[in-house]
Amino acid sequence: MSSDEVQSYDVVMIGAGPSALSAAVYTTRENLRTVIYEKAAIGGMAAITDRIDNYPGFADGVAGMELTERFQQQAERFGARIELGEVTDLYTDGDSTVLTVDGRKVRAKAVLIATGSEYNKLNIPGEAELYGRGVHYCATCDGAFYKEKHLVTIGGGNSGIQETIFLTKFAKHIDLLVRSTIKASEVLQDELQPYIDSGQVTVHTHTTPTRMVIRDGMITGVLAESDGRSVQYDCDGVFVFVGLKPNTGFLRGTSIKLDERGLIITDDTLQTSMPGVFASGDVRSGATMQIATAVGEGATAALSIREYIQHRAAISK
Amino acid sequence: MSSDEVQSYDVVMIGAGPSALSAAVYTTRENLRTVIYEKAAIGGMAAITDRIDNYPGFADGVAGMELTERFQQQAERFGARIELGEVTDLYTDGDSTVLTVDGRKVRAKAVLIATGSEYNKLNIPGEAELYGRGVHYCATCDGAFYKEKHLVTIGGGNSGIQETIFLTKFAKHIDLLVRSTIKASEVLQDELQPYIDSGQVTVHTHTTPTRMVIRDGMITGVLAESDGRSVQYDCDGVFVFVGLKPNTGFLRGTSIKLDERGLIITDDTLQTSMPGVFASGDVRSGATMQIATAVGEGATAALSIREYIQHRAAISK
Repeated sequence: MSSDEVQSYDVVMIGAGPSALSAAVYTTRENLRTVIYEKAAIGGMAAITDRIDNYPGFADGVAGMELTERFQQQAERFGARIELGEVTDLYTDGDSTVLTVDGRKVRAKAVLIATGSEYNKLNIPGEAELYGRGVHYCATCDGAFYKEKHLVTIGGGNSGIQETIFLTKFAKHIDLLVRSTIKASEVLQDELQPYIDSGQVTVHTHTTPTRMVIRDGMITGVLAESDGRSVQYDCDGVFVFVGLKPNTGFLRGTSIKLDERGLIITDDTLQTSMPGVFASGDVRSGATMQIATAVGEGATAALSIREYIQHRAAISK
Repeated sequence: MSSDEVQSYDVVMIGAGPSALSAAVYTTRENLRTVIYEKAAIGGMAAITDRIDNYPGFADGVAGMELTERFQQQAERFGARIELGEVTDLYTDGDSTVLTVDGRKVRAKAVLIATGSEYNKLNIPGEAELYGRGVHYCATCDGAFYKEKHLVTIGGGNSGIQETIFLTKFAKHIDLLVRSTIKASEVLQDELQPYIDSGQVTVHTHTTPTRMVIRDGMITGVLAESDGRSVQYDCDGVFVFVGLKPNTGFLRGTSIKLDERGLIITDDTLQTSMPGVFASGDVRSGATMQIATAVGEGATAALSIREYIQHRAAISK
C-alpha cells in the first residue's frame, strides 16, 4: 500500500468501550473487517469502575477492569483490531464514509460511534482519589451500596433532584448541596418535597463544595462554602450530579444531528442522520448510562450495520 | 392474608428469560418488590441453547444453561421471586395493573412483559433431537460454526432469503428448500440472484422437507419430497426459517397494541400502549432475537419502570 492510498475497512468503530466491543464481537464473527479507534483507554468508564453488580452474568459482581478485559478478548478472538487513534472528522461521499484518523484518511462501508459520555466533575481536592470508592456519579450503579448510610448529593438540576429522590430508597439521611438555587422542574421539586418534610433530605442552597474530607483513605465528609463560612457535612458517601458531557465534540461541523444535550439522535435501527453511520451506548440520545444497555445496543447496531452493508452491496452490483 | 385478598407487588414480570432476569436485577436492587411468573422453564430459549459465543463477557463462549443460571442467581441474590404461574389476562384500573395468574388476581404498580418468541418448527422426525446441534433457527447465532461447510436452508419468505444470503458468508454451498415458490420481496430476490448465478446457492422450489437424516447422532442430510419423488440433500447443518411465533396469545382481548407479526409495540421508554405496562426482549416489535439485546432492554425497561413508579407515587401523594 502506498503512503497516500486510503486504508479501507468494512466497519470502523469509534471508542473502545463496552458498546463497540460488543458490536465488534458480532461484526467480526460475520467476517466484516472491523477496526476500533480509541483515543485514550480501552474499556471506557466501565474499566475504571471498582465493582459492577448489575451486569447480568456475574452473580457476585465483577471488577470493571476484568469485565472490560473479557469484552476485549472476545472481540479480538474473532478478529477485531483495536488501534490507538483519534477521529477528528467524518463525512459520507454517498458510497461510503471517510474518516480522518490522526490526520490520515480511512474509508469504511459503515461506522459505529460509541464514544460514550463522561460525568462532569467538581474538580475539587479529594474527588479524583475517591472516584468510585466514596465519590460516585451514578445512583443506579452505586446507590445500593449505601443502605442506611448518610449521603451528600450535589447538584440542583433535574438529575440532581431525580437521583436524590432515588437515593432516599437506601440512605438514612441526605444533605443535598446546591451552588445557587434549585433549577429542577416543578414536577421534580414537588416529588422531592415529602422527603424534605419527613426530614430524610435536607437542602442547602448557595452552598459550594470546596473539598472532600478524607480520613485513612475513606471519605468522611464534604467541606463547602456558604455565605463566606466553611461548613463540613459528614457522610459515608458523595454522589455528584452536575451534568453529563457526551464525547461528541469531534462531530461539530458534521451533518450528524445531536439533541439539546449534545447526544446523538438515532432512529429505531440506531442509524444517525448520516447514512451508514450508527451510534450506540452512552453517547446516544436516550442513553441509560448502564453497561448492559450499552452492550445490548452494540449488538443491535451490529445487526443494523450488517443489513446496511448487505443491502448496499446488492445495490452496487 | 385472607384467601380472597389480592396479592400486591411493586413489579410483576411475565416470563423468566434473560430480559426479565436482567430487569429484576435492577428492580430488586432498588428495593422494588418483584415477582417473575414463568409458565414453563426458567431461562427461556437461551437455556436450551447449546453454546453461546456472542454474549459479551464470556470470551470463549458459554453454555446457555450456565449463562441463564447465572442470570437467575443474580436476580435472586437481590431478592427476586420466581414463581411457576401462567398469566392469562391483564388490565389497568388507572391506579395499577391487575393480572390474572392461574385464575388468581395479582396487583402490580408496573408490569414487564418479557415472554419472548419461539421459532416455528417444521415438526418432522429428527428435528427436535438435533435442536441446536445440527438444526438451527438463528443464522446470526450459529452461522459462524459452519465455515466452508454445506448447508440446507428452509423457507422462501423474507427471513429465509435474507438469512440464506447472510449464510453465504460462511457456507461453501447452500441448498435452499422452498415448499411452494419464493415469496420474499423483489429486493431480496435480487440480492440473492448473484449467489445463484455463482453456484453458491441452489434453490429448490416445490420441495417439502420430510425428515432429518441422522448418522451416529449427527445430521448428514435432509430428506424432502418433490413432485412425488423423495430426494436427499446432504449437508453438515440445517437452518430453518419458517417464521416466528411471539408469545403474545394471552394479550388477545387486552388493549395492548401488537404489530402485524404479533409482537408488542413500545415507545422509546419501552412502555406499551397500556400505561404502566412495559415490554422488552424477543417479544417486542423490533426484537433482534439476541440475548445481549434482550438483557440490555431489560435494564432499560427497569429504569423506565422505576421512573414510572416514582412519578406515580408523587402524584398520588
